[in-house]
Formats: sequence, structure tokens, C-alpha cells
Amino acid sequence: MQKKIILTGDRPTGKLHLGHYVGSLSNRVNLQDKYEQFILIADLQALTDNAERPEILKQNIIEVTLDYLAVGIDPKVSTIFIQSQVPELTELTFYFMNLVTVPRLQRNPTVKTEIKQKNFGSGVPVGFFVYPISQAADITLFKANLVPVGVDQLPMIEQTNEIVRKFNSTYEPIFVEAEALVPKDAGRLPGIDGQAKMGKSLGNAIYLSDDADTLQKKIMSMFTDPTHLKVEDPGKIEGNTVFTYLDYFASDKKTVMEMKEHYQKGGLGDVKVKKYLNEILQELLKPIRERRQHFAKDISYIENIVRAGTEKAKIKASQTMQEVRKAMKLNYF
Amino acid sequence: MQKKIILTGDRPTGKLHLGHYVGSLSNRVNLQDKYEQFILIADLQALTDNAERPEILKQNIIEVTLDYLAVGIDPKVSTIFIQSQVPELTELTFYFMNLVTVPRLQRNPTVKTEIKQKNFGSGVPVGFFVYPISQAADITLFKANLVPVGVDQLPMIEQTNEIVRKFNSTYEPIFVEAEALVPKDAGRLPGIDGQAKMGKSLGNAIYLSDDADTLQKKIMSMFTDPTHLKVEDPGKIEGNTVFTYLDYFASDKKTVMEMKEHYQKGGLGDVKVKKYLNEILQELLKPIRERRQHFAKDISYIENIVRAGTEKAKIKASQTMQEVRKAMKLNYF
Repeated sequence: MQKKIILTGDRPTGKLHLGHYVGSLSNRVNLQDKYEQFILIADLQALTDNAERPEILKQNIIEVTLDYLAVGIDPKVSTIFIQSQVPELTELTFYFMNLVTVPRLQRNPTVKTEIKQKNFGSGVPVGFFVYPISQAADITLFKANLVPVGVDQLPMIEQTNEIVRKFNSTYEPIFVEAEALVPKDAGRLPGIDGQAKMGKSLGNAIYLSDDADTLQKKIMSMFTDPTHLKVEDPGKIEGNTVFTYLDYFASDKKTVMEMKEHYQKGGLGDVKVKKYLNEILQELLKPIRERRQHFAKDISYIENIVRAGTEKAKIKASQTMQEVRKAMKLNYF
Repeated sequence: MQKKIILTGDRPTGKLHLGHYVGSLSNRVNLQDKYEQFILIADLQALTDNAERPEILKQNIIEVTLDYLAVGIDPKVSTIFIQSQVPELTELTFYFMNLVTVPRLQRNPTVKTEIKQKNFGSGVPVGFFVYPISQAADITLFKANLVPVGVDQLPMIEQTNEIVRKFNSTYEPIFVEAEALVPKDAGRLPGIDGQAKMGKSLGNAIYLSDDADTLQKKIMSMFTDPTHLKVEDPGKIEGNTVFTYLDYFASDKKTVMEMKEHYQKGGLGDVKVKKYLNEILQELLKPIRERRQHFAKDISYIENIVRAGTEKAKIKASQTMQEVRKAMKLNYF
């Protein structure tokens, strides 16, 4: 029996952080043996709102791949590849554009939200506007059955499946609908400043590559309960980032529960809780950091991995495009 | 010195007619020795508003190529190629989409007009909406210096040159701006029913492939002056399609002038004028029709011409895309 196919990936915007680890990376490590996993480094998607700065992409591709290997993604079973090196993706996007209307794109809730967030001055770039179509091409070109996404990305899967149905009914039924794989403990790791989202541009991220000192300093600066001034005062758990992190990362749930009770009653200082979190995260991140440093010594090895993954992805891409052209009757001669 | 490059072409929507001959085909024959001419059979563009009927494209590609050869386009000097077989066009379109905003596309007068004309029921397909960007890719991929267009297409060249400037300033200056080549005796051949435009869907076209009888019948049915009931009545020249055609096709301008005077004064019947036009058009179209019949005997020869042209176009396309990827710093490894 053939393994089901997963399509996942990241925009290469820089080093990956704990938010990526919780939201997707750890999941990929868990899934990579059970499924055939394609991991797309979406450099073209990064260009859609950043057309002016292509020179940073190469370095970011290396950083992201290092993070992948560091957390345990195995390039022997997972295919890591670069979007721009598979031009079939742009070709399929082009064909799909005939199957979606402008008003349908305008109604896409994810795009609506992101357009608001990004404050495009002189207007939304067309490339950004059509990126749900490009994402549909990413997914379908690899005949992905499963796409791990957060709840906010569900409209993108819906859009993809609409395109799949439209293509299949207009031409020939060569594509399968994709299923969203929403992580069970869905939810987003907040930034160390307590903001809902951890992000590079927000300056509130713990990177997988942070050294032990940096990690400790970031933890000691974390947002807790601003009204918890004296150790003996009762403290709040809700919105207390340190406890949120403990919920994510501590395996000893009993100790965390006891600490929470103690903290709420009064008599447990922030520093103690942070030190406990520091122990846990140092233990989690040390081997990741060490593997990362090990791989970083040989960048040409990293390049080879991405090159080999891209070659493998291109084979699959080329097979699908042959089917697409046949279905569309574009294989004239 | 290198020849300047022309990019021109047609959507393969069926056999070509006298309107095409006047508006572009005869011009291509005149230009093909002086310039390096790429003739694009725009099958992908035909799909943008006709995604459902790809099966007719192949036949139409053959018909259009037959018409090209029949009018004297020489595949030894002009490169006839098929858009969909040069996927670099879709890739370049994809990159260009980041350099144009949605509001800018919405302001494009040509697109505005065409969207109105086409009455898209459930909304404009995205592929149609972005076709000015795709056209810019057609032009720039071949580094065209000149693009023969009608006045109504000038905004498309403007859009292309905006993209060229934006690409050149964002990445590296690898593209040249294109110049619109508006035919001197600009103007559009009306349909035989007197409508401003000759078109397949309007059912008012004289095809280059029409046989002598059909041609004669069409001419005898042409729209003249509906108030010119009796031969002795004075007739009007303005809006009289037969005289419009004579202005286009008669080389004996003096005779035409005399006929016009006679017609306006009264005493010259429509049938006589039509017979004169018939003589002229039969003479023009007979060799075209015969060459077409000759070529139509060997369709595999036609396929070879298109295949060879496409191969040649792909070489140029591949060269340009190497430059594009270098300029965009997408040539990572």
C-alpha cells in the first residue's frame, strides 16, 4: 500500500523558533515515517510581499534547512525542496488561475486578514493576491492527501479543494482533494513578551539556534503576571507566559500543577518558575542546538540535501504536469 | 548588427479572416526579412476565457499556421511557436505578478473594456484579469523591441514597459522597453454586415480559406447604403462597406474615386460595385487559398514547422530565464 502524501513547508524568512517547533516541526518529525512528506521551502511565496530583497533568500534557505535537520527531520524519508527550483509550480498556478474568479479570491478570509495586516501601501501585489492559487498548485502538484495547517489556514485548503473539483470536472479527474491536518493541541505559542504570536519581526522569539545564555536571558525576561510584585502575593496563571510554556514543554504535569496552585496562593516567585522552565527548555534545545552546530560546519552538505530533495520533487512534479497537460489536451504533438 | 526583434501573434480561435490580413498578417510578411520575428500562437491566452474547451485548440493551431503560410509568412525567417509549449512564459508571468498591484491591473483600460464586452457571469477569471502581465511576459521573454498592435492595445504595451522598468530597477536591468508598432493605415476592416469589427462570433467574416463561390456570395450580400434603392438614386459612401473594402484592397485608386463620384451622383448600382470588389478580392485570395490547400495536404509538415519554431523559441526563452533567475538571485546552487 502506498503511503499517503503530506505537503508542508515554510517561507524562508529566517531562523526558525520555538513557535515553529510547537506548531509544525515536531509534528513533521512524528509524521515522517508514516507518510511520504514533502517539505517546501517557499522562497517564491516569500517574494510575493518581499520582491525587493531576493538576496537574503539563499542564506535563509540554509538556516531553515539547518533547523529542519537539527530537530530531527530526516532527509532520507522527508523530501526538502525549494519552490523556485520547481517551475512546474508556476505553470500549474497559471492554469489554475483560469478556474478561479477574482471575486472568489477577494472573499478568501485568510487573504483578507493578511492583506489588512500587511498594510500594502500602493496596493496589494498581484502575486500576493493570487497566492491561494499558488498554494493550491503547491499542494496538488505533489498530489498531497494531507496538509498540516492551523485553523486560520483552513480557508486555503477549502480554496484548494474547490480548484481540484473545478479542474477535475472541467478536464479530467486527476487530482485528489486534500485534507487539513489540524494539530490536536492546536493553539499558538505566545511570544516571550506575552503577545499572542511569536515572530521574528515582533522581536519576541526564542530561536532553536539560540545559545544557552541567550535562552536563559530570554526566559528570565519573560512576561508573567505584572501585578505579582512580591513573592508572597497571589499570582495569576492566565496570560502568564511562563506557565503557558510549561504547559507546552513540561512532561511532569504534576509538578506544574503544584507550582500553579502555589503561585496562585502566593509564596512562589517568578524567578523560581522561570528557572524551572529554563531547565526544561535547555534540555529540549541543547541537543537541537548541538546537531545544528554540527551540520552548520558543512554547508555544502546542506546544499546537497536541498539539491537532492529538489531533484526528487522535480520528478514528481514532472509526472503530475504530464498528466495535467494530457488532461488539458495541451500535449499536441 | 543584430536585427531588432518583433513579437506578434494570435489566439488560436479559428481560421483567420480578411480583418486579420489587413490588421496584421500582411504587415508580418512585409516585416519578416527586416526583423527577427517571433509569432506566438497564444493557446494559453485562449484558455483564459475558454478554459472549458481545450480540445479545439489543436485544430485551431493547425488552421492558424496554414493561414500564416498561405499569406506568405516564411517559417525559415519567422519563428512560429505555441505559447503552452514554452512554460518559461508562465514562470516569468509568476515573477512579474509581484511587480504589479491589483489596483493597477483594475485601471488597465483594455482589460476594463474587454471585461465589459465578455460579460463574465460569475466573475472575471483570475487568468483573464492578469493577462496583461502574461502578455508582458510574452513580449519580454523574447526581448522584443517592437510589438505590432492596434491603438486599442496601446495600454498593454504601457503596462509591459512599466513592468520592465520595475523589474530592471528592483533586480538588474536585463529587459528592454518595447515599442508599439501601430500600422500606418490603422483602422479596422468592418464586417461584411457593416459592423465595426469582423469576427468569427459575429458571423460577418470573409475567411482567407473561403472558396471562390463563398467569397462571391459574401461580397454580394455586403452591407451598402440601405437608402440606395434604385440604381439612379444617389448613394452614400460613408459607412458603405463595399467602398470601405475598395479603399483597402483596390490598387487602382483612380477608378475607385470615379466610382465613388458616380455612386454619389446616382446611376451606379450596388451589384456593379460589388462585382468590381469581387474581382479584386478573388485575385488577392486565390493564390492564398491555393497555397493553403497545398499545405493542408500534409499536416505533419505543418506540425513540424510549429515544432521546430517552438524549439527555437524555447532556446531564446531558456536564455532569458537564466538571466532572470540570475538577476533575481534565484540561482542558488
